[in-house]
Amino acid sequence: MAYLEPVTDQWLIQTRRQIHAWPEPGWAEFVSAARVIEHLEKENFKVLCGREVINEKFIRGAKKSQIEEGLKFARERGVSEAILARLDGVTGVVGILETGRPGPKVGFRCELDCVPVTETDDPEHIPNKEGFASQHPGYMHACGHDGHQAVMMGLATWLNANRDQLCGTVKLIFQPAEEGVRGARPLAESGILDDLDYLYCGHLGCDIPGDEVVSAPEKFLCTTKVDFRFKGTASHAGMQPEVGRNALMAGSTASLALMALPRHGLGMTRVNVGYLRAGEGRNVIASTAEMQVEVRGETEAINTCMFNEAVTRAEGAAAMYGCTCEHEIMGEAIDFVPDLEVQKNIEEAAKTARYCTKVSPTMNFNGSDDATVLIKRVQKTGGQGGYLVVGSDLKAGHHQAKFDFEEKRLAEMFDIYRALVIKHTGA
Amino acid sequence: MAYLEPVTDQWLIQTRRQIHAWPEPGWAEFVSAARVIEHLEKENFKVLCGREVINEKFIRGAKKSQIEEGLKFARERGVSEAILARLDGVTGVVGILETGRPGPKVGFRCELDCVPVTETDDPEHIPNKEGFASQHPGYMHACGHDGHQAVMMGLATWLNANRDQLCGTVKLIFQPAEEGVRGARPLAESGILDDLDYLYCGHLGCDIPGDEVVSAPEKFLCTTKVDFRFKGTASHAGMQPEVGRNALMAGSTASLALMALPRHGLGMTRVNVGYLRAGEGRNVIASTAEMQVEVRGETEAINTCMFNEAVTRAEGAAAMYGCTCEHEIMGEAIDFVPDLEVQKNIEEAAKTARYCTKVSPTMNFNGSDDATVLIKRVQKTGGQGGYLVVGSDLKAGHHQAKFDFEEKRLAEMFDIYRALVIKHTGA
Amino acid sequence: MAYLEPVTDQWLIQTRRQIHAWPEPGWAEFVSAARVIEHLEKENFKVLCGREVINEKFIRGAKKSQIEEGLKFARERGVSEAILARLDGVTGVVGILETGRPGPKVGFRCELDCVPVTETDDPEHIPNKEGFASQHPGYMHACGHDGHQAVMMGLATWLNANRDQLCGTVKLIFQPAEEGVRGARPLAESGILDDLDYLYCGHLGCDIPGDEVVSAPEKFLCTTKVDFRFKGTASHAGMQPEVGRNALMAGSTASLALMALPRHGLGMTRVNVGYLRAGEGRNVIASTAEMQVEVRGETEAINTCMFNEAVTRAEGAAAMYGCTCEHEIMGEAIDFVPDLEVQKNIEEAAKTARYCTKVSPTMNFNGSDDATVLIKRVQKTGGQGGYLVVGSDLKAGHHQAKFDFEEKRLAEMFDIYRALVIKHTGA
Amino acid sequence: MAYLEPVTDQWLIQTRRQIHAWPEPGWAEFVSAARVIEHLEKENFKVLCGREVINEKFIRGAKKSQIEEGLKFARERGVSEAILARLDGVTGVVGILETGRPGPKVGFRCELDCVPVTETDDPEHIPNKEGFASQHPGYMHACGHDGHQAVMMGLATWLNANRDQLCGTVKLIFQPAEEGVRGARPLAESGILDDLDYLYCGHLGCDIPGDEVVSAPEKFLCTTKVDFRFKGTASHAGMQPEVGRNALMAGSTASLALMALPRHGLGMTRVNVGYLRAGEGRNVIASTAEMQVEVRGETEAINTCMFNEAVTRAEGAAAMYGCTCEHEIMGEAIDFVPDLEVQKNIEEAAKTARYCTKVSPTMNFNGSDDATVLIKRVQKTGGQGGYLVVGSDLKAGHHQAKFDFEEKRLAEMFDIYRALVIKHTGA
Repeated sequence: MAYLEPVTDQWLIQTRRQIHAWPEPGWAEFVSAARVIEHLEKENFKVLCGREVINEKFIRGAKKSQIEEGLKFARERGVSEAILARLDGVTGVVGILETGRPGPKVGFRCELDCVPVTETDDPEHIPNKEGFASQHPGYMHACGHDGHQAVMMGLATWLNANRDQLCGTVKLIFQPAEEGVRGARPLAESGILDDLDYLYCGHLGCDIPGDEVVSAPEKFLCTTKVDFRFKGTASHAGMQPEVGRNALMAGSTASLALMALPRHGLGMTRVNVGYLRAGEGRNVIASTAEMQVEVRGETEAINTCMFNEAVTRAEGAAAMYGCTCEHEIMGEAIDFVPDLEVQKNIEEAAKTARYCTKVSPTMNFNGSDDATVLIKRVQKTGGQGGYLVVGSDLKAGHHQAKFDFEEKRLAEMFDIYRALVIKHTGA
Repeated sequence: MAYLEPVTDQWLIQTRRQIHAWPEPGWAEFVSAARVIEHLEKENFKVLCGREVINEKFIRGAKKSQIEEGLKFARERGVSEAILARLDGVTGVVGILETGRPGPKVGFRCELDCVPVTETDDPEHIPNKEGFASQHPGYMHACGHDGHQAVMMGLATWLNANRDQLCGTVKLIFQPAEEGVRGARPLAESGILDDLDYLYCGHLGCDIPGDEVVSAPEKFLCTTKVDFRFKGTASHAGMQPEVGRNALMAGSTASLALMALPRHGLGMTRVNVGYLRAGEGRNVIASTAEMQVEVRGETEAINTCMFNEAVTRAEGAAAMYGCTCEHEIMGEAIDFVPDLEVQKNIEEAAKTARYCTKVSPTMNFNGSDDATVLIKRVQKTGGQGGYLVVGSDLKAGHHQAKFDFEEKRLAEMFDIYRALVIKHTGA
Repeated sequence: MAYLEPVTDQWLIQTRRQIHAWPEPGWAEFVSAARVIEHLEKENFKVLCGREVINEKFIRGAKKSQIEEGLKFARERGVSEAILARLDGVTGVVGILETGRPGPKVGFRCELDCVPVTETDDPEHIPNKEGFASQHPGYMHACGHDGHQAVMMGLATWLNANRDQLCGTVKLIFQPAEEGVRGARPLAESGILDDLDYLYCGHLGCDIPGDEVVSAPEKFLCTTKVDFRFKGTASHAGMQPEVGRNALMAGSTASLALMALPRHGLGMTRVNVGYLRAGEGRNVIASTAEMQVEVRGETEAINTCMFNEAVTRAEGAAAMYGCTCEHEIMGEAIDFVPDLEVQKNIEEAAKTARYCTKVSPTMNFNGSDDATVLIKRVQKTGGQGGYLVVGSDLKAGHHQAKFDFEEKRLAEMFDIYRALVIKHTGA
Repeated sequence: MAYLEPVTDQWLIQTRRQIHAWPEPGWAEFVSAARVIEHLEKENFKVLCGREVINEKFIRGAKKSQIEEGLKFARERGVSEAILARLDGVTGVVGILETGRPGPKVGFRCELDCVPVTETDDPEHIPNKEGFASQHPGYMHACGHDGHQAVMMGLATWLNANRDQLCGTVKLIFQPAEEGVRGARPLAESGILDDLDYLYCGHLGCDIPGDEVVSAPEKFLCTTKVDFRFKGTASHAGMQPEVGRNALMAGSTASLALMALPRHGLGMTRVNVGYLRAGEGRNVIASTAEMQVEVRGETEAINTCMFNEAVTRAEGAAAMYGCTCEHEIMGEAIDFVPDLEVQKNIEEAAKTARYCTKVSPTMNFNGSDDATVLIKRVQKTGGQGGYLVVGSDLKAGHHQAKFDFEEKRLAEMFDIYRALVIKHTGA
């Protein structure tokens, strides 16, 4: 039986470039969310968004100022007030296509947000060459989420075109705030995934070479994202340096000690102090400092060990300088085991995809993706879940200023998703 | 001969409180400058401002974003466009009263700016009790500059009232950006002080108890204000931590090492890392860091030694982590020796002032004030200069959130300035 | 065919306890070497030792003072001058039993040295309870080498008793200086292993539970042991602190930065600054510092990356404080892949051993043992090699003051070695 | 009246060179003490030594191993058992010359000990050129105490020769362990100074140029010498790095934080971490660290502030890494005010001395000398005390490897002491 093929490679590439040009940080993806909503509705999807798909009580790490700025930018860029009213300050979109025919409920998930990296100004960088580099200073789609969104928007078009030949239900999930692993939990807690029989999540790149697909990556690291806030006492650095309680010193000392958290005999660990701001003015003993930290561990026990030790070190550093230290958990991700059937489906689908010449059963992911939170939720409510990686030769690693994937991988990923849809809901 | 006395204690206090409620950072004192301009013109002074008194080529440490914000606030608070046009983005005001009668040219100088400290919310803090605490979050007149301005505005009123009984010329100099010792140099380089025979600068507090005045503080520390900027390479903290070149680590390591710059066998030193910001996002190896640093030394040689060592340490810290490090000098102040005649005048004047019961010849200032740059300029062009301290029992040290001086010191300082004016230009 | 069984469990335990009571650091194991030589010769082995089995040119990390002290202790404890003359300052013993009948050449290897840990004084610690705790302050057999030696000494007795029923050649290799992975290389470079067809190395404990044996551990970490030496300039800390170039600060800064060497995306890493000594006297700016460091990596590439970054950080730290930094490589170990036949032999042998109820094919070793250097040498010269772990419930982890293994594991390990000997050289 | 002059410049120089060649650390000055005892007794002084002049209860910072080594060296260098028996393990010598004629009791004090600095091997260094460099590796008379001893031994000879022309009593005090300011307190507590009417202490060098003498240095810094000992938990750095509690990290972190103790608004401060030793072995997480620290302050309040803050920082650093931290005070010195009469005597005496062309009333000492403890004791018991500095052009600062003073200063210092003796006890 023949399907209609309305999605061209060129459309995927153009869509990805449009997304790339305006990257948005987590919880502030209003332009992206609006683009998705309009596209999904054009393709006759039922669209839920904002608080309909996000359980507000579980939102973490949402910065008021970023949300406000995101809204301002959205208005400047012509997003309609009607859509902003539907979102009501909360990003996240789920498109639902119900064929009306009995069949399984299948979900696909991608991410809306970007990373706070300034895109390179190297003229050889393709987004510069081709004129689609980030116009949002300090932010960049340096992780591939622009590609994932484009592929899923193409999938929406394909699904609508072939709606009459399909059965069951397909949900396209556009998750906010994956960076910082903040968005999955409140999405899962909305219950929107609870009726799914299958959930597929995927990623481009991940140090897998081009033409290779991995059907079941291992070693998704458990992670805790935590902010530390140090409070000391200001004083005049020239006249009374001894009176101050120096929070900048506490923060710097804690940074060095956190980056030196010991490795663990039982498995892989990670730690990063990604952001530190301390002090008020040059000639004032710094009275405040704040740090954004993440720890990871191959297992939950290892991650907990890293987290506890991090807190001990930060609090000790504060005590050294007569400061106080508070911490707030900003996000969490966990590990998971893919279902065998899902893995097989991915392998089968990958073999039919353009460009793919090698399908590997596994790899060490060595990173975190809160897709694991979603998959575990689906598994808990009786469904199955999996995660696939579409390899790509990269110009630079993820989160680097020169990160760029091969655009033909969009077609490859699209082919896999299309094959999975047909597998589950095809005639 | 009797002078008119139009300046009441209550007026000084109310004016000071009005200034206190809206503190502004250096180079962004548009509300303060406008208040001074309007007052001086009301009192029939000739007023020069902006580029007329500031040599733009010597401006250091002026932040575009702060200036723009300062202008925005100024408009919101009703500052006229006419005055903003005269200032044209540059603060600094000099009021000139020419009696038309031959006589000496005498200058007084105060500072317009505040410090980036958040005022305490302690209900016992008098500005909270009396309702004149800072309305500008993150900023506070925690050094006494509000008092200095009020005294000099009162002096303008007094001068105008007694204009006909005076001879010579009086210049009232309202300097921007004293914090960070940035404003004096471009003010001096405008040439506006070059015709002065006498320049008086003064400060409230400085750890001198109430009722005491110091006529010639010693040990004004030489100082260099320097910014360091570290540049590394971002990478994904989970997938490729080893690829990053960690500027946050470089900055933290440099901070610890700078605060540990050795003391000097030949005299007093100071060092402060007052501000550090590093990193872009939690899960990215930090690729940038910037630090605001100041070093001080009892002599120029010691200060230079401190500065050179600071650069060595910061550059070494960058090298440790494969980062680069640049530095930019943001401000400088020097030492000076007061003229004996000026010191005697201050002592004589202080003895006539209300509340003053003790006049001390000297104290260790142990801090920096770029008044020294102005005084040395005046001395170089044939005039004389001095610096006086009006003691006050303080609630907390300078630059602390609970800093507060006794308001009766406004009258005491006014009395001294008034006596000095009469000494030089009186009938 | 029946073998004679002259080795009792009690003998193994008593011998191990005797060894335990006098632990010796690497390259200074004179008492241990002498004990082995005398025992081997009593059992009619041909014995080579000292420079006969150690290629002096490849000795690393041998401390003159420790060797001299070791010799002094050996004399005090009654070691004969004849044996000391044969050793001539170099430890290391190989016992050779040639049956005179054609057959394979099989080697077994254990380690002579201990770790510089002070044994606990907890009265519940069995060596304290039973009176065989370390009499050498600051040193302890806290890694199990005492057990390994006892087993191999028992093996010598067994081999001699059954000599007439065996064929081929057995070499019993007592390697010095395994801690610090220093001894294997000069042993291999003597050529003493080059005729071996099989080499078996083994270890007690390693976090494998009692009753379990592992036949082919993976993830032997590559490692580089490196010393850093910082040199600065002394000065009087009170009178001229600014003149000094502070090597203690360089060493402390380097320590923090080395412990914070980034994890690696491609595999496991380790780093430790195990020893730091800096400075000369309290009131002198420290002019020297020395550090003992080790890095490890799952592969040679990762280890090299760790090592290079360590050097960069140490040199940068030196530059920060105007010091110089030299480094010297003190030891190296590598990874290896066991031969399948050898692994099968171990599994078979383990199944016959007392107490062993479970044989696992592999585990993550996550440590380094320079046995890998010996095995790779044997593999390169045409033989085969393997490594087995005999699990034991431990009182505390390796290298801890309360480390203690179950003494019945001596019998279990002996059984395995005995079975391997019979497998290769039995009738 | 003419005095006999048996002391030649050459004798002073030769004696100083002899002392220089065998420097000894504090509390281990057995060779030096014996040399002094023999000389004093030859010159018919009554000699008290060891526990006769040292109150054992107040001994601090005496290392058993150094004392034992010092005794061993003393025996090797031919010191008689009789003298060692008199000292009985405690250094310190006081020689008493009683003229039998009524008159004042006058004391002079010098120091027996050296600093733990390795003397330069620069062939241009005069002790190398002339063959009297330190033969005691790691130790050097790099502070001038060799010169002080030589001068006071010459003074003994002069006093004996002129005994019949003098009145009153002279005590020559050879104090142990001045470095680390450990020896003065137990000397004072012996009561040996309590009958003195005058006590003179002196120092060569101290950054005063040659030909200048200072009669009353100011700013003797108060100081506290403190040892910190960190205790953590060892573990295998490869297998269980997370189990260790890293005392080396605690010590390194504390070192950086201590060197960064804030300056003080009220006066001069100093801090030094002069010695750090941490860890047991390369592949063991370090479980111990020890640090030798000193803080100083211009006043006792400032010194106390420095000390308290040091303890807070060290304890916080320990807490960061799950370690404990203990501290022990090892020595203390204080400030003092010289008596005016004594200062006048010094000035008068200096004016008669060879080479001296300038006598300055004061200087900033900016260091510590526990002579202050002795002087305060004498002042408290009704006597007077003072401290003089005999300037010298130095090859390098005190405590540096190339430190060397001009040998003609021995004659200059001798002249001053001789003049003081005559002033007080002359005919």
